[in-house]
Amino acid sequence: MTVRTASITLETQGNTDIQDITRELNRLVEESGLRSGTVTVFCPSSTSGVTTVEFERGALSDMKRMFDELVPVNHNYAHNATWEDTPKGRHANGHSHMRASLLGPSLTIPFTEKALMLGTWQQVILVDFDSRPRHRELVVQMIGE
Amino acid sequence: MTVRTASITLETQGNTDIQDITRELNRLVEESGLRSGTVTVFCPSSTSGVTTVEFERGALSDMKRMFDELVPVNHNYAHNATWEDTPKGRHANGHSHMRASLLGPSLTIPFTEKALMLGTWQQVILVDFDSRPRHRELVVQMIGE
Amino acid sequence: MTVRTASITLETQGNTDIQDITRELNRLVEESGLRSGTVTVFCPSSTSGVTTVEFERGALSDMKRMFDELVPVNHNYAHNATWEDTPKGRHANGHSHMRASLLGPSLTIPFTEKALMLGTWQQVILVDFDSRPRHRELVVQMIGE
Repeated sequence: MTVRTASITLETQGNTDIQDITRELNRLVEESGLRSGTVTVFCPSSTSGVTTVEFERGALSDMKRMFDELVPVNHNYAHNATWEDTPKGRHANGHSHMRASLLGPSLTIPFTEKALMLGTWQQVILVDFDSRPRHRELVVQMIGE
Repeated sequence: MTVRTASITLETQGNTDIQDITRELNRLVEESGLRSGTVTVFCPSSTSGVTTVEFERGALSDMKRMFDELVPVNHNYAHNATWEDTPKGRHANGHSHMRASLLGPSLTIPFTEKALMLGTWQQVILVDFDSRPRHRELVVQMIGE
Repeated sequence: MTVRTASITLETQGNTDIQDITRELNRLVEESGLRSGTVTVFCPSSTSGVTTVEFERGALSDMKRMFDELVPVNHNYAHNATWEDTPKGRHANGHSHMRASLLGPSLTIPFTEKALMLGTWQQVILVDFDSRPRHRELVVQMIGE
């Protein structure tokens, strides 16, 4: 049993930008030398989250609309008032924080035979809810044998 | 420390069918020979999810209503347009995908003394959001000693 | 590789009381003697959940409002009818159960060099959705080396 820590670097557009990280995750699992175990993908951020989806244009646009409806951008967020006179305030992102907390920053996926045990139509995604483009470094930690 | 991979097979009715998998999970933990560690339950699917609930008739009907309200069936999902002329399109399930992504496909639960560390009124559930009955094979992976 | 099981005890006010458990988690990781691995925080409860947030007054009040809007207190929850003639019924908490199931009871976070790999503005929180003050014992399980 071993722990392997790696990362995935992404440039996002923010505003519910959805990026498929499945291929990169499978590559990291292969390179780890581990045969079976779990991989945890973690966003060290309070304005992005991870989940899975069928990565096709329709579902991605449905997802953007879902978050717009559940946690609207144009709401009177107290978080925006906290930062309004600062450089951070130029990019009001109260909605980004709430969407990220709701979706969650962590996803744990089993792997065997050096491959993630995903469904045929299931991809792992980062969703960047921030209100501006961001550089992201996701933590990818594998535990297995 | 060892990794053990098992599975749980379910026949669901779809349409937010909620099934209690607690007993089966505890059985798999017992059979694993492991004393303490974590078990990860993962749905290799983009139309179902896992969480916990007090498994009683009232809460289950509340949960169905919650998802109907948060992510309505009769919305104009772009995902449905993608598939509309195919066999898959006969079962429009754009809402199923969104609900599954929101709830999440993965749950990690600690166990000690060969038993899941759940609360008294807390059961582990699969929620199948697909728009038709499905055969499901959940991945159950235990890491422990 | 070893498993370490610990706990965090909290007294909450219920009603979407949000408590920062980051410092306590980092202390448990330090005390575990493990260098790198994952820590799983689990609520053995069906009326509370865990996630991360930028722990500042504005975001906390935004979070309370978000849950009030997504899963309102004053809805006709079938769960409340189940318990209405019992002592438990004095504290109608159908909404608490639904919020907890939606947010989820489990969070897995990687650590290296004996520290959680969190973002600068990211804290780990327990959210207690119950309708009254509660005594909570969260399970904290570390697996690593």
